[in-house]
Amino acid sequence: MDYVRFSYPLMKRFCLDVFCRFGFSMEEAGIITDVLITADLFGIESHGMNRMVRYHKGIERGMIIVDARPEMVFETPVSAVIDGHEGMGQLVGHFAMERAISKARQNGVGIVSVRNSNHYGIAGYYAKMASDKGLIGFSCTNSEAIMVPTHGRLAMIGSNPIACAMPAEPIDFFFDASTTVVTRGKLEIYNKMGKTLPGGWALDKDGQPSTDAADVLLNIVGKKGGGIMPLGGSSEVTGSHKGYGYGMVCEIFSSILSLGVTSNYCMPGSRDLVCHGFMAIDPAIFGDPETIKSHLSRYLQELRDSPLADGQNRIYTHGEKEALAVEEQMKKGIPVNHNTMSELIDLCKYLGIDPASYFGDYTLPEGQGRLRPNY
Amino acid sequence: MDYVRFSYPLMKRFCLDVFCRFGFSMEEAGIITDVLITADLFGIESHGMNRMVRYHKGIERGMIIVDARPEMVFETPVSAVIDGHEGMGQLVGHFAMERAISKARQNGVGIVSVRNSNHYGIAGYYAKMASDKGLIGFSCTNSEAIMVPTHGRLAMIGSNPIACAMPAEPIDFFFDASTTVVTRGKLEIYNKMGKTLPGGWALDKDGQPSTDAADVLLNIVGKKGGGIMPLGGSSEVTGSHKGYGYGMVCEIFSSILSLGVTSNYCMPGSRDLVCHGFMAIDPAIFGDPETIKSHLSRYLQELRDSPLADGQNRIYTHGEKEALAVEEQMKKGIPVNHNTMSELIDLCKYLGIDPASYFGDYTLPEGQGRLRPNY
Repeated sequence: MDYVRFSYPLMKRFCLDVFCRFGFSMEEAGIITDVLITADLFGIESHGMNRMVRYHKGIERGMIIVDARPEMVFETPVSAVIDGHEGMGQLVGHFAMERAISKARQNGVGIVSVRNSNHYGIAGYYAKMASDKGLIGFSCTNSEAIMVPTHGRLAMIGSNPIACAMPAEPIDFFFDASTTVVTRGKLEIYNKMGKTLPGGWALDKDGQPSTDAADVLLNIVGKKGGGIMPLGGSSEVTGSHKGYGYGMVCEIFSSILSLGVTSNYCMPGSRDLVCHGFMAIDPAIFGDPETIKSHLSRYLQELRDSPLADGQNRIYTHGEKEALAVEEQMKKGIPVNHNTMSELIDLCKYLGIDPASYFGDYTLPEGQGRLRPNY
Repeated sequence: MDYVRFSYPLMKRFCLDVFCRFGFSMEEAGIITDVLITADLFGIESHGMNRMVRYHKGIERGMIIVDARPEMVFETPVSAVIDGHEGMGQLVGHFAMERAISKARQNGVGIVSVRNSNHYGIAGYYAKMASDKGLIGFSCTNSEAIMVPTHGRLAMIGSNPIACAMPAEPIDFFFDASTTVVTRGKLEIYNKMGKTLPGGWALDKDGQPSTDAADVLLNIVGKKGGGIMPLGGSSEVTGSHKGYGYGMVCEIFSSILSLGVTSNYCMPGSRDLVCHGFMAIDPAIFGDPETIKSHLSRYLQELRDSPLADGQNRIYTHGEKEALAVEEQMKKGIPVNHNTMSELIDLCKYLGIDPASYFGDYTLPEGQGRLRPNY
């Protein structure tokens, strides 16, 4: 897949205009844009411009309700349950994490569980909202089922990412990962490239390991069985039950506490109604925040400085790769692949915007674009 | 390895007597015994009678201080930092989780971080203390370094288990797992049996995958490099950075917030000074606890009822295997392997107890026992 790069200010202007055209306020468009572009800046391509088509189609088909307002349906000084009323996931998520942060500032901890939302982008964005304000942040979300439980053959649990962020010097700790081995996006990329999947990723419709991306994706779409393995693979020998367990912890904070829809009932193509979980903790409830931050920073530095495996040239702590990616994209521009560009151009047409006012004389290379008829 | 079985009441009486002889009060001995025997009842052999030798040697060498009292060094309505003062880990852990539970009952959430403790047995025991009382429980602990960070070759992070428990019918959700692929105990068992390690478990001193249990264990003891891979293996392709990330989350709640010793400074054979983290959450801060419990129970049942992979005969939800093991050990007795029996007999001699008063005419089979000179 080939890429074209556009500057951060340009992509930001494009995104803002798109979401304003969809009917969101300037403030709302700003939040959605920041979540999406942060993913691209962090090098998490799957969750940035690549996802615009999903929001485009979601809004077009009425699965995402533009003027929905998240509603607090249950609240205590340290907790809340929010009904997203099928609004834009980023707005629901931002609203919920702000409540968690405000509770943590006032009472030390804030835990917020959300139901009836839509895809909210990268889980890490919301964890980072807390760490940017000196707090420890957690965020997780369920999704349509893609993870096959250990010994099973039907996807019953989402990719269920869990993110955690905490202030540190020189780079905050920032951990954001699906509880499956990989996400569906990775399978789609292998499929587009016609490459065989690495072992330990996917299961066929009988629950047996498969390296055939096209077959696995087809089975998933057709609900014929199979899917992606939990972190730890499909056998308990390599810890399959552990990834499955973390997927369940995500489910507890998102769908269980909010009485929302568990991943096995989130149907793609229908109203997703996914659920999220958020937690903010003020380190000041354990002592001096600066001392705690230094303690973490020292350990992270020791990890980075520890001896390398033969053939490796760097040990990363969580958040470093994202910080390096931001530096690169800010300098070189945000990479957008041509398939995604084709979707963005379609979106411009739909909204009556002139693509040239953003992308100049960009034209799709021969044979690119329109490769995702599923959306 | 061969086993002999003794009844639960007999093993409980033995344990109580041992810890009373060591100088603990009857109440304290009761707590320690319950933590240890729960591990054996749950089928987690590595953390039950198998660990007696560790506590025996720890107390004998003054690394575990019998009359230490955990001290609350920082406290808010939703949090605490506790200094274990090098006491018995089970007592420190029990004390800390009771505080977390009491805070959760009063204020919805309780998070407690502990420093200067000793090995506390299975992490899940403390999470279960909360779920037994209708709350959601979390528990984690760091340990001497055994996990090699992704791209590294020196163990810098402990096996760092994280446990989560939550009430459900007919069996509570109970998830307790190291954030490494496996624990060191598993390597020791393979070594004893002279078996080759499964791929994806361990690294040699250069940070390369190894299946040689003896070599890996020797390198770990000699701090020559190598160790166990994070959950997800040693490559990012299979999610190595995710297990490494969960190991760090454990470290944050245990050593970082308590300003205790990070895993890379926990030295085996010296005072361990490990750190623990605990959290209790009252589901009532999100709505009606019974409705929430039913919602989780329904999902767990759907997971158990979902279609099986070819060749499998059951999908387990977390906590089921432990419940089945309890049933079996209660009926047949607790299995103790002969190597462990040899350690228990040594312990009797050390304390001036007659082994026959517990184990009758049991004698070690020819060639068994004394296989762990490292303790």
